[in-house]
Amino acid sequence: MKSKIKVGIVGATGYTGSELVRLLKVHPNVEISVITSESKEGESFSDIHPQFKNIEDRKLESLNSIDKYNLDLVFLALPHGVSMDFVKENINATYKIIDLSADFRLSSEQVYKEWYKEDHKFPEGLKKAVFGSPELFRDRIKGAKLIANPGCYVTSVVLALAPLLKNKIIQPDAIFADCKSGVTGAGAKAKDNTHFPVVNDNFQPYALKTHRHTIEMQEVLDDACNTKTSLLFTPHLLPVDRGIISTIYSIPVKNVTEDELRVLFADFYKNEPFVRVLTKIPSIKNVRGSNYCDIMVNYDKRTNKIFTISALDNLVKGASGQAIQNMNILFGLDEKTGLEYVPLCP
Amino acid sequence: MKSKIKVGIVGATGYTGSELVRLLKVHPNVEISVITSESKEGESFSDIHPQFKNIEDRKLESLNSIDKYNLDLVFLALPHGVSMDFVKENINATYKIIDLSADFRLSSEQVYKEWYKEDHKFPEGLKKAVFGSPELFRDRIKGAKLIANPGCYVTSVVLALAPLLKNKIIQPDAIFADCKSGVTGAGAKAKDNTHFPVVNDNFQPYALKTHRHTIEMQEVLDDACNTKTSLLFTPHLLPVDRGIISTIYSIPVKNVTEDELRVLFADFYKNEPFVRVLTKIPSIKNVRGSNYCDIMVNYDKRTNKIFTISALDNLVKGASGQAIQNMNILFGLDEKTGLEYVPLCP
Amino acid sequence: MKSKIKVGIVGATGYTGSELVRLLKVHPNVEISVITSESKEGESFSDIHPQFKNIEDRKLESLNSIDKYNLDLVFLALPHGVSMDFVKENINATYKIIDLSADFRLSSEQVYKEWYKEDHKFPEGLKKAVFGSPELFRDRIKGAKLIANPGCYVTSVVLALAPLLKNKIIQPDAIFADCKSGVTGAGAKAKDNTHFPVVNDNFQPYALKTHRHTIEMQEVLDDACNTKTSLLFTPHLLPVDRGIISTIYSIPVKNVTEDELRVLFADFYKNEPFVRVLTKIPSIKNVRGSNYCDIMVNYDKRTNKIFTISALDNLVKGASGQAIQNMNILFGLDEKTGLEYVPLCP
Amino acid sequence: MKSKIKVGIVGATGYTGSELVRLLKVHPNVEISVITSESKEGESFSDIHPQFKNIEDRKLESLNSIDKYNLDLVFLALPHGVSMDFVKENINATYKIIDLSADFRLSSEQVYKEWYKEDHKFPEGLKKAVFGSPELFRDRIKGAKLIANPGCYVTSVVLALAPLLKNKIIQPDAIFADCKSGVTGAGAKAKDNTHFPVVNDNFQPYALKTHRHTIEMQEVLDDACNTKTSLLFTPHLLPVDRGIISTIYSIPVKNVTEDELRVLFADFYKNEPFVRVLTKIPSIKNVRGSNYCDIMVNYDKRTNKIFTISALDNLVKGASGQAIQNMNILFGLDEKTGLEYVPLCP
Repeated sequence: MKSKIKVGIVGATGYTGSELVRLLKVHPNVEISVITSESKEGESFSDIHPQFKNIEDRKLESLNSIDKYNLDLVFLALPHGVSMDFVKENINATYKIIDLSADFRLSSEQVYKEWYKEDHKFPEGLKKAVFGSPELFRDRIKGAKLIANPGCYVTSVVLALAPLLKNKIIQPDAIFADCKSGVTGAGAKAKDNTHFPVVNDNFQPYALKTHRHTIEMQEVLDDACNTKTSLLFTPHLLPVDRGIISTIYSIPVKNVTEDELRVLFADFYKNEPFVRVLTKIPSIKNVRGSNYCDIMVNYDKRTNKIFTISALDNLVKGASGQAIQNMNILFGLDEKTGLEYVPLCP
Repeated sequence: MKSKIKVGIVGATGYTGSELVRLLKVHPNVEISVITSESKEGESFSDIHPQFKNIEDRKLESLNSIDKYNLDLVFLALPHGVSMDFVKENINATYKIIDLSADFRLSSEQVYKEWYKEDHKFPEGLKKAVFGSPELFRDRIKGAKLIANPGCYVTSVVLALAPLLKNKIIQPDAIFADCKSGVTGAGAKAKDNTHFPVVNDNFQPYALKTHRHTIEMQEVLDDACNTKTSLLFTPHLLPVDRGIISTIYSIPVKNVTEDELRVLFADFYKNEPFVRVLTKIPSIKNVRGSNYCDIMVNYDKRTNKIFTISALDNLVKGASGQAIQNMNILFGLDEKTGLEYVPLCP
Repeated sequence: MKSKIKVGIVGATGYTGSELVRLLKVHPNVEISVITSESKEGESFSDIHPQFKNIEDRKLESLNSIDKYNLDLVFLALPHGVSMDFVKENINATYKIIDLSADFRLSSEQVYKEWYKEDHKFPEGLKKAVFGSPELFRDRIKGAKLIANPGCYVTSVVLALAPLLKNKIIQPDAIFADCKSGVTGAGAKAKDNTHFPVVNDNFQPYALKTHRHTIEMQEVLDDACNTKTSLLFTPHLLPVDRGIISTIYSIPVKNVTEDELRVLFADFYKNEPFVRVLTKIPSIKNVRGSNYCDIMVNYDKRTNKIFTISALDNLVKGASGQAIQNMNILFGLDEKTGLEYVPLCP
Repeated sequence: MKSKIKVGIVGATGYTGSELVRLLKVHPNVEISVITSESKEGESFSDIHPQFKNIEDRKLESLNSIDKYNLDLVFLALPHGVSMDFVKENINATYKIIDLSADFRLSSEQVYKEWYKEDHKFPEGLKKAVFGSPELFRDRIKGAKLIANPGCYVTSVVLALAPLLKNKIIQPDAIFADCKSGVTGAGAKAKDNTHFPVVNDNFQPYALKTHRHTIEMQEVLDDACNTKTSLLFTPHLLPVDRGIISTIYSIPVKNVTEDELRVLFADFYKNEPFVRVLTKIPSIKNVRGSNYCDIMVNYDKRTNKIFTISALDNLVKGASGQAIQNMNILFGLDEKTGLEYVPLCP
């Protein structure tokens, strides 16, 4: 790798935008050429995110300015529904695009409309996009022009289920994904349900039966594992900043032992730098700030049930870190480059 | 009710002990005659629990002293395994006993040994004890001499499942109870896994497959609902002080609608003062400090699954408040007496 | 006291409104006649505050409806700047008014304008209002028509300083009040600076040099202690829901010992039911949910400095509880009525 | 720099030990040769700190083994009182020593005994040791054999006061340091006062008048600024993991303006890579996980008082990060090497 990858970050005010900058600032093969924000154009990046004071003080620019930077890659850290406008207009630009929104993750405009309750503005993009889960679709990612970076809940659930479904070990129509996420998953904008006294010392599920990541999980698992899942997903809001724990229950369709399952998982992920197959219980803080997804599979002989526990940082492996992992694949770098940091614990 | 009920509280240093005092201090029909502690004998109650300064400053006494108080009732707020010694010695005393430990909740010494890995020291007590779940066993409680006050997780799960199991709506052998508890459930004594930096901004499951409340849940449900359950229970540790949310998944064995289920639950608990059947999502803070158990039942038509969500305060409805509710039943008081306080939120 | 006090609560959606209802629901001498909200008129109180489900489900009414209730007392739980409109219009009504906002706490329209940067709409009200600090102005409160309920920070600071200033023990022009408050002090409305990920696991001061409670502290102390203070007040935002700890530094002008100071404080507050003078370090949780203000005075011989630590619950002694204490005084009740609850800890 | 610095870390089970490994794993000029623990000898480092799974799994060794590694530098991450034994025995070894404990920070055995209430076991070490505050004593550090790494509170206070005291702007005998720290400052071992329900949603001061960092602050300031301070230091325990905010009050002895003070601070630290002089209010999260100390100086004209606010991560700039900064100085590296990471926020 001679010259650095010239990167633009579109959308600077949210958490995925600031995480991209946090990680890319110390990536040895990347030059951040431009950071854009329409709402904060002209302000300093460190005015919006003061932790970057003296580290990244550059002025935010308008989208219009990105053409002049001769970019190799654009990360879209935009709200859902906004990315598709950008992609529609720029799909033929010379740079590649990694979209961190949900706009290009589903299989068709029909499915999109069913779950998002609105028309997709660029259905051809859905066909062009590759789902950016390196562990499941690395080969597709390599040559992609447009990558749909996976949802945070989705990554935590599909990595925990893929070995079971690919090997036809569990009933595909009786899967219960009980997931618990930190508040950054809801974004950087203050809302009534993220007001500190509402969340602190509190806990509850939300978006019962209807969360849009449900269909994303099912489609990805069906595609990767050649199956037909029917999965009940219940998200819960934790009084923590970052991190997702998914506890996923299923029913075996054949005789298994816990040892066999653990060997199966270890083998399945043996070449994956960012999946740690554990025999100890995963926790959020053991992955905080890092690109790891920790997974532990269990079999309860007494009730004859299987349950898998996974942990990841929703802003890193669940968003910006995985996006950079996809970038590394796209540009032929060692997949671990710029991502080998130790989780911040405690 | 002419004279007040003379009450002794045995075990003053833990959370259930201090909660009993918090609630009984304002109960109109109770006189706290004595509070005991072997380890802190002679110290003031408010030295151990400074929030009681100027409210309850009396000296803690030894167990030996309780005979002189002519008590009507003793609450045992002792560690598991210690209560059984007290009960064995005092089962023929004139006072009634409400035991907040797990010592007398199971059906037999065999079951006890299987899950607690030690011999029971007073097996006859297991036969004599009535399981103190007012909503399920009110009639048995009325005349009891010894009440085994239910476990916190147990109350949250059995109240959420009883209407379904009693009406044969779900498979009894495919129930997944995913429960999340605040740290006070682990007691007042500092341990490595309750050190603040270990818990704060963190989350993880624990005691996989082996938590002792599992068998308590199964036995109570089987007894109350005349069924034979096989239930997978996974507890998780929340970074909050108080409260349990249980999200419980099951598979219907007949055609149901969500409306029917909600009517069923509303009807089942229509005379229960402390069960609130909701159509909004329960949360921990909406029951904090109170004796309410909030329950919401849901049916996901897409996957044909039922899931119930319940919330309670583990130290109140999950321990000391329910103990006082049992006391009210035992002594013929209105069951709500001294318990009608508004949850502290936020 | 034969009949109950008929009370109206104006402003139902904020935290002080819900705290008033929480406490008044179990007050033996009060009947809540009406609760108003302009923005939520027609909705159920428990729709806005779900912890009140089955406890207080009544419909919220418009302000216009309150005349028909023949009220004895109105609590104003309105935003600052809105209360003064109500008072201006209703100052001659038959009911008394306790205003929980800051509108009538200062001495004059000039001082108001200097600190609030706008004109006061009812300057005569400033003259009529009595500052509702029972420990300092009980006699004035007794016959008042309009009570300005004190600010939360103000109560925590003035009770900690009054014994020192009244007895001319410290320099009045070198007082440093370093105060730390929970987030409910900022109100129930979500704002950028109260977004959970902004506050959680974080801490910082705010409103440097300019917080409006500064002048309220100075005026109250000068009035109560016949002095002329110059006080630097620095508020900080704690990642907790409720509670204020104030650590207040000062310089003695005479020889003192710690013992003397502690005797002085104990004596000063010896008849006060809600001030607990401690020799142990106060904490927020030891007063949570209660009307207590805990105070500890210290003298550091090495540096010859005095510092006082106080703790209270900003929503109770710092707002709604103190308002009810004022009501008890106004209506000749025992001052403790309806307020003798044990702090919720943990 | 040809070969890597061979480093030993003595004491692996605490927070400063794991932070050293977290930071040194990605330091380009360091090779971690050995990590020791007497209590956990033979166990894997990642068994003790599971966040290091697959990152640092090496076995912990006994102290006895370090001689065979031909080390250039030893970091002592031992409890206070234990480091001095190691230093006494190994002061003539060929490696340099950076001691993160408090054992060698004070000026004399008399002062040590006065504040630590026990005899110092190696008084000569007190004379040999250089206080490792790079901003104040960089030149002394360069040639040191033994570095006493500063206390976390101390760093936050002395950096905030040095420009004022060195320029004789404030009274040296009327300084009030009101400091608030996260719980990791109390160490990795569970104690009653760090039990989650004791700390969570709570706040209080501790160690009034007697905290040992008081004398360390005074001695360092007096040495660096040629003055004679008398400083009242009050630490408080925040319900957060990491971070210290110090709010430090003082009284000017000359006419100043806020602008002048800010220019003075900016100038004082203009060449310091890890001190960020701010005009916005510092916060803990803006420095979390990083080696920055953020400082803001303020002047309140109304009361004629100066107050300075500083923020740092107690485990990084307050301990392990500063230790590595000292290492960089000792070995002639660019002082920023291995420390230029972006704070983790949120």
